[in-house]
Amino acid sequence: MSIIVVGTIGYDTVETQHGGVTDALGGSASFFALAARFFSPVSIVGVVGTDFKPEHMRLFAERNIDVRGLARREGPTFRWHGRYHEDMNVRDTVSLALNVFADFRPELLPDQRRSDYIFLANISPDLQTHVLEQVASPKVVAADTMNHWIANERQELIKLLPRLDILTVNDEEARMLSGEHNLVKAGRAILKMGPDTVLVKRGEYGVLQFSQNSLFAVPAYPLEEVIDPTGAGDAFAGAFMGYIARHGHVTESILRTGVVYGTVMGSYVVEQFSVDRLTGLTWEDVENRYRAFIELTDSHHSRWMSQ
Amino acid sequence: MSIIVVGTIGYDTVETQHGGVTDALGGSASFFALAARFFSPVSIVGVVGTDFKPEHMRLFAERNIDVRGLARREGPTFRWHGRYHEDMNVRDTVSLALNVFADFRPELLPDQRRSDYIFLANISPDLQTHVLEQVASPKVVAADTMNHWIANERQELIKLLPRLDILTVNDEEARMLSGEHNLVKAGRAILKMGPDTVLVKRGEYGVLQFSQNSLFAVPAYPLEEVIDPTGAGDAFAGAFMGYIARHGHVTESILRTGVVYGTVMGSYVVEQFSVDRLTGLTWEDVENRYRAFIELTDSHHSRWMSQ
Repeated sequence: MSIIVVGTIGYDTVETQHGGVTDALGGSASFFALAARFFSPVSIVGVVGTDFKPEHMRLFAERNIDVRGLARREGPTFRWHGRYHEDMNVRDTVSLALNVFADFRPELLPDQRRSDYIFLANISPDLQTHVLEQVASPKVVAADTMNHWIANERQELIKLLPRLDILTVNDEEARMLSGEHNLVKAGRAILKMGPDTVLVKRGEYGVLQFSQNSLFAVPAYPLEEVIDPTGAGDAFAGAFMGYIARHGHVTESILRTGVVYGTVMGSYVVEQFSVDRLTGLTWEDVENRYRAFIELTDSHHSRWMSQ
Repeated sequence: MSIIVVGTIGYDTVETQHGGVTDALGGSASFFALAARFFSPVSIVGVVGTDFKPEHMRLFAERNIDVRGLARREGPTFRWHGRYHEDMNVRDTVSLALNVFADFRPELLPDQRRSDYIFLANISPDLQTHVLEQVASPKVVAADTMNHWIANERQELIKLLPRLDILTVNDEEARMLSGEHNLVKAGRAILKMGPDTVLVKRGEYGVLQFSQNSLFAVPAYPLEEVIDPTGAGDAFAGAFMGYIARHGHVTESILRTGVVYGTVMGSYVVEQFSVDRLTGLTWEDVENRYRAFIELTDSHHSRWMSQ
C-alpha cells in the first residue's frame, strides 16, 4: 500500500499582503508526503542540497515518511520565491532556482520499483516518464503538471497521459491542455487524451472530478482566513492518493471520498505558512473537519432542525 | 401557500459573444414566477406599459401565475440592455430605461395582504419596504438587492434587513454590504445585520448559505454551454422560495433542499435566452436534474462501481 511520490523538496520564500516567510520548507513532494502519511506509508523520491537542514530531514522521518530515496547532492537546495496578490488566487513567481534539482535523474530503490501507487508531482513530463518506467506494475499512477510543461513540453506530456490513471490540473491548466474554455468540455476532452480520471482543482471554488461515467463536484471548505495557499494542491493530492492506497482498489465511491479528504487537507494547509499546519495536525483534526465538510455539503441535512 | 413576488417585468436586449436577443421577456419577477410556479401558486406584483404584448400576459396566465397585481400603465414597459463578456461572469449594462416602472408604487390586493410568503426582488429598498408594510403577518420574507442600492440607498436597505428572514446577494454585493473581502466573514457579518439566512450566489461557483447555526455550500450544476446568464439568480430564488412555500415551514433541511432546487432551476434558465428554457420546462425535467445534482454532489457515492 506504500506510495512513491517524486517531486521537489525545497525552500520557499512567500510574500502575501499580510505577511510572509523566508526559506521555509516547501516543494510539491513535501506537502504531498506530509498529507499522505495520515492514510498510508509514503516514500519521497527527490533531491536536496548540502544546505538542507537536518531538522527538516528529521521532520519527515519522525512522521514515518521514508526518505531513503531523498538524495543529497553538492550545491544548494531548490528554491522558489512567490508573491500573492490581495486576491490569493493570483500569484507571481519572483524567482525560481532549480539548483541541485537541475541535473536530477531519480533512480528508484529495488523495493520502490515494486510500488503499487505512484504520484508524479509537478516536474517535467520527461522526468515523470523516467520514473514511471522504473516501476514494474503499478496499480494506480497519478500525476500533476503545470502551465510551463503544457506550453513547453507538450509532446512529452501528451505521450504520458495514456499511461496515467489520474491527472490533476487547475482550471487554467485544464483550459490550456484541452483548448476548451468551458471547464466541463475541458475535463471531458482531457479524459479522451488518456487518464481514467481528471481532477480539476479550482482553489477556493472546489474541485471537479471527471471520469468516464460520472462527474463529481465539491465546493472548497469555506475559510474565514487564508494565510498562504502554497502547497494546497499538493496536500490535496497527498490525502487523495493516501486514501486510495489505504483501500487498495479504486471505485467511484473511494475516489469521491478521497476528493473530500483531499479538500480537508487542502483547507488545513492554507491556514499557516509553509508546512506548519500539516506538521502539527492530528488524525482527530482530520476526522473533525471531514465530518464538518460532510455536514456542510449535505443537502439532506437532518441534524439541524430549527424553528 | 401562495407567494407574492414584487419586481420588474420588462423587455431585455442581451448580447453575448455568441449571439443575442432583442426585446425578449425578462425582469426579475418574470424569472422568479416562472420558476416558483413549479412548487407553489405565485402572484406577480408589478407594472407593464401599453406595449406589453398580450402573448406575454397569456404566457404567465397559462402557467397559473396570478397576474391580477400586474398593473398596466400608459407608456413603454421597463427595458434593460446588457452585454456579456467572453467570461460570462462579467456584464455591462448598455442602457436601462425604467419607463412605467419609474412612478410605480405597488398596492397589494386585499387577499395578497394576507400572504405568507413574500419575495422582494431587486427593486429599491424604499419600494421593498412599502410592499412589506402592506402584508399583515408574513411567515417568510425574502429579498434580493444589488450594488446600486447598497451604494446609493444604504440606509433604507440597512433598516429593511432586520425585517427579512432571508437575503440573497451575489459575492460582490456581499462584500460591498459587509465591508469584508472574505466571503465567510461577509456572510456572517450580514447575518448580524438582521436576516436569519443569507444566501450568497456565486454564479458558476455555486451558493453559500449562512444561518446562525450552520453553513451550507453547494457547487453550481456544471454545464457544457451557457447561452445567457440573465435571470439565473431570480429563477434560483423562485424555486427556492417555491419549495419553502410548498412545505409551509422552514427547517435547515428544507432550506438546503430549496437551495438545490434553486440551483437546478438556475442551471436550466442559462441554457437559452430570456425565459425560453423555463417556459418549456416540465416537472420531470426539474426532478431529473435534481436527481442528477444529488448524484453529482454525493460524496458517499454508491451507485457507480468501477474498477
